[in-house]
Amino acid sequence: MRLSQSFFYTLREVPSDADIRSHQLLVRAGYIRRLGSGSYSLLPLMQRVIHKIEAIVRDELDRIGGQECLLPQMHPDEVWEASGRLEAYRAEGILFHFQDRQNRGQVLAPTHEEAVTLAVKDVLRSYRQYPVHLYQIQTKFRDEIRPRFGLMRSREFIMKDGYSFHTSAQSLEDTYQQIGQAYERVFERLGIKVVAVEADSGAMGGKKSREFMVLTQAGEDEVLYTADGQYAANVEKAESIFSPAVPSRFTEHHKHHTPGTPTIATLCDFMDCDPTQVVKNVLYQAIFSSGVLVPVLVSIRGDQDVNPTKLSNVLSEMFSGLGSLQSLEVPDADQLKEWTTGELPLGYIAPDLPDSLIAFREGVHGQFARITDFTVSELENFVTGANETDHHVYGANWGGNFQLGYLADVRMAKAGDRAKHDPEQTLLSARGVEVGHIFQLGNRYADRLGLRYLDAQGQEQVPLMGCYGMGITRLAQAIVEQSHDEQGIIWPLAAAPYQVILTVANMGQSEQAEKGLQLYQDLKAAGLEVMLDDRDERAGVKFKDADLIGIPFRVVVGKTIQEGLVELITRQTGEKQQVALEDLESTLSGLCVERKRSDSVC
Amino acid sequence: MRLSQSFFYTLREVPSDADIRSHQLLVRAGYIRRLGSGSYSLLPLMQRVIHKIEAIVRDELDRIGGQECLLPQMHPDEVWEASGRLEAYRAEGILFHFQDRQNRGQVLAPTHEEAVTLAVKDVLRSYRQYPVHLYQIQTKFRDEIRPRFGLMRSREFIMKDGYSFHTSAQSLEDTYQQIGQAYERVFERLGIKVVAVEADSGAMGGKKSREFMVLTQAGEDEVLYTADGQYAANVEKAESIFSPAVPSRFTEHHKHHTPGTPTIATLCDFMDCDPTQVVKNVLYQAIFSSGVLVPVLVSIRGDQDVNPTKLSNVLSEMFSGLGSLQSLEVPDADQLKEWTTGELPLGYIAPDLPDSLIAFREGVHGQFARITDFTVSELENFVTGANETDHHVYGANWGGNFQLGYLADVRMAKAGDRAKHDPEQTLLSARGVEVGHIFQLGNRYADRLGLRYLDAQGQEQVPLMGCYGMGITRLAQAIVEQSHDEQGIIWPLAAAPYQVILTVANMGQSEQAEKGLQLYQDLKAAGLEVMLDDRDERAGVKFKDADLIGIPFRVVVGKTIQEGLVELITRQTGEKQQVALEDLESTLSGLCVERKRSDSVC
Repeated sequence: MRLSQSFFYTLREVPSDADIRSHQLLVRAGYIRRLGSGSYSLLPLMQRVIHKIEAIVRDELDRIGGQECLLPQMHPDEVWEASGRLEAYRAEGILFHFQDRQNRGQVLAPTHEEAVTLAVKDVLRSYRQYPVHLYQIQTKFRDEIRPRFGLMRSREFIMKDGYSFHTSAQSLEDTYQQIGQAYERVFERLGIKVVAVEADSGAMGGKKSREFMVLTQAGEDEVLYTADGQYAANVEKAESIFSPAVPSRFTEHHKHHTPGTPTIATLCDFMDCDPTQVVKNVLYQAIFSSGVLVPVLVSIRGDQDVNPTKLSNVLSEMFSGLGSLQSLEVPDADQLKEWTTGELPLGYIAPDLPDSLIAFREGVHGQFARITDFTVSELENFVTGANETDHHVYGANWGGNFQLGYLADVRMAKAGDRAKHDPEQTLLSARGVEVGHIFQLGNRYADRLGLRYLDAQGQEQVPLMGCYGMGITRLAQAIVEQSHDEQGIIWPLAAAPYQVILTVANMGQSEQAEKGLQLYQDLKAAGLEVMLDDRDERAGVKFKDADLIGIPFRVVVGKTIQEGLVELITRQTGEKQQVALEDLESTLSGLCVERKRSDSVC
Repeated sequence: MRLSQSFFYTLREVPSDADIRSHQLLVRAGYIRRLGSGSYSLLPLMQRVIHKIEAIVRDELDRIGGQECLLPQMHPDEVWEASGRLEAYRAEGILFHFQDRQNRGQVLAPTHEEAVTLAVKDVLRSYRQYPVHLYQIQTKFRDEIRPRFGLMRSREFIMKDGYSFHTSAQSLEDTYQQIGQAYERVFERLGIKVVAVEADSGAMGGKKSREFMVLTQAGEDEVLYTADGQYAANVEKAESIFSPAVPSRFTEHHKHHTPGTPTIATLCDFMDCDPTQVVKNVLYQAIFSSGVLVPVLVSIRGDQDVNPTKLSNVLSEMFSGLGSLQSLEVPDADQLKEWTTGELPLGYIAPDLPDSLIAFREGVHGQFARITDFTVSELENFVTGANETDHHVYGANWGGNFQLGYLADVRMAKAGDRAKHDPEQTLLSARGVEVGHIFQLGNRYADRLGLRYLDAQGQEQVPLMGCYGMGITRLAQAIVEQSHDEQGIIWPLAAAPYQVILTVANMGQSEQAEKGLQLYQDLKAAGLEVMLDDRDERAGVKFKDADLIGIPFRVVVGKTIQEGLVELITRQTGEKQQVALEDLESTLSGLCVERKRSDSVC
């Protein structure tokens, strides 16, 4: 690429809508340009980065038997209705959805479990044809509430999504592990540090999933991990050992007038008790796709918080007959009026808040879903509300005064908690960006969409599925977020759009111009990926641009060319060396091998 | 690829919705599968074909300085409003259009003139940065009225679309020609016969365009061409010499009672005249994006037909002030009632049909657009309508009896006409599928979207643009339409998903199975692209499948393996030869080089 004959530009100004460094740098260096909300053109330099990442992904997936395909981006409604996801995804608002000229609904797909299942249905009929691992690299769409951070959270983005089909749990587990390892190799080859964490499966369903996170302050997710490297999990999923409660001195059961103590802090202050001695009872309302509203009451220890993701999972399981969970929230006063018969003693609620407070009407479940978190299930002589404003009880006990609800872990783990695998380790917190997520889905999609196979005995069976995502455009930007300095981007060699930028310091000097062009042609012929900066600009401008766009090696053809010498600068280290013209090709080739090795992170 | 361990299937039944051979074969051979109307999954074999085509396209475009980028598929309305195309494209109904969660309109883009112009706007500022040639390979969407023929006319398809920017007409012409030549090389390398034809620019605008057509009976376009290879044009655009008129014997001007002669045939029969002596006057109604309806009266020779594309172009130019032309049709009785003041003498209309017959109301242009085709502008003593039912005039002349309208070529050329470049040549007709179309656009998009540059004198100028499309998925199927037999597909080597299929005749024979696997690994190691059919199926089934999927070379590992021999069959010729194991690799490599050469069509 000769800059004088190519589409190339850089910007001095930091774009006003770019909050994080990687976004700013990619815009300034001419890699991406905004077209609309959450929508970016990938300009030629970026497209080369994307191709490099894609090639590595294909290489690693093909190596373990993945087969690339390309499924439609636009799906008729029936496809998503068959799995039961259309309603849930539309309710969430993330689906772009429209009518075609025959007024048939169409989905712009953010994921392809349904489409791939239909692609293999009826033709993957014998157990002998299994397992199968299909993947695609494709633009996906999500109508994000708040698109931001450039390619990190955009409405249109490139994903690698893969799907596997199996006749046994062991086969699924094997492929799941293989793909997880392939992902690790992709990240390693790209020179990006990624942490694998336990994760919640979310709307995808299934039991087991693992996220791959790039740790960065700009991340939207919180990761809890231990210093020994043995544990890492998304905070939505994380588990920990909770601290023991301070033994309670309230050995007798009493109701107490506690005016003005609706919060744990005011209560503990008034009662001179410890938050670990209190059972707090938190109200939620859950709405399911059938339209039914379920009132929820969670009992949890005063020093802990509820994890809405864990609570959602528990409720989805308890009420699977009501359809999928559409929303879960702490109801405000107006919402409470919709389904209660009178005033609730908010701030003073007991675990046995009576069901009679729930309005008897259609669409409202007549009983509280009572969830007891493990933090309180063994608590003794605790303090809790008295179902009467300005009153609490103390010295209460389960079985005696209150009945335990549905026992579950709905607690939010947090930094400082002790780790389950080793109580000596405490959880640390970091922020991360999800660049990959793999799931064991079970048989949900196959079952609903009618995918069946005949086993060795000729019996019809429902196969198991896995699905595997990797955000290609997000990964490209995450690399920049992890690898840059004040001057600009520092591409790891494997992801760099070019390996070498050849800068002619002064195009007015004919010897520099000619030797520059000659070197460009020689290095290209030797198989190196080279940019030639032969623009009619000052040397300082060219050096700044080279640092900004982040090419791993810069070769300057300047005054010393008269002595047959060029200057070679390594972008990452800033290291400079004089190299004789005749040694340049071998030096660069050698550095490329070396750099590839040192970029790789294990 | 080992078939026993891969997703692979073939079907015996011809799919009921597939009308043409290529569509039937691609479905039966497991290359594509329908998901919805005009929407196909590209299965692994097809995805390999697509990658091969894409690689050749990239290679040829990069070689002439093209730079690959990737523009968003979803565009905010403002982008299409800025060029003035939103309304026109929506009126045509081919745009998928929807609202996002903020109720902002979004277009699923079928083409990217606007998006690419905005991508370079303000950063392509100096004449020194020109010319620029950007391209992308991307899925496009069109809400076709009648999607059909598989990938030939689908609602979702892969396109290569490119755009160039220039500071002079010569620079545009140079790039236009270079890209045309690159297209020819792509088709040649793929082994597909493509004819370049003159074409109409249609909704794209601009003056000059060239289509690349694959000639096939299944084509939706008609091509007129000459046997000497000097001329080929889409019928919409084609020109020709019209036959001379038979000299008229009606030297005196008379009005004549001609009862029951509303057609040329009945009239000529009644008057004993030749159709070439008649001026027929055809009514149209044209509706523009401003909402204005323009009544149109075309005078053309009795033996000729109006070409609606040519007429549309003439009207668009005459009435550019009324916006873009939305529809052009011959009005039916109900439509006529909407804008006439009384009965028209249909079948007996004269070139001077009075404007007073047009209703005076808002939204209707008050005068006929009178177009005189070149076939009648020099006609003498002709016969034409008398503006009175059952009456004609004869011996009429321009200037004397009638005024000439706007002179233009709006005639449909047809097979049998004499060619303009050589009257000895007559036009022949063939059907074709458009696989490429390149345009010189002029400055329309740059102008409307505000793209400007500073010339050498520091003056602000509007650049010129070209745009260049190639249908990748359509091309893949067109190859099959052009290259198949009764047994199945015959891939040219450059487009084949694999070069060699290695068929183990009997997997029950351990020597065959072992030698087959060994050969597979050896040939792969030698750089050949090989499928191993190691399924537990009868040899006949495997041979049929190999023919159906169309791999260029089949190697059969059968009984003769005991003597160290395999059978090598060339799919295209059916030629069979016995090859010793030790010669197989070199024989295949040699054949691959040879086949590549003979596939190439010039």
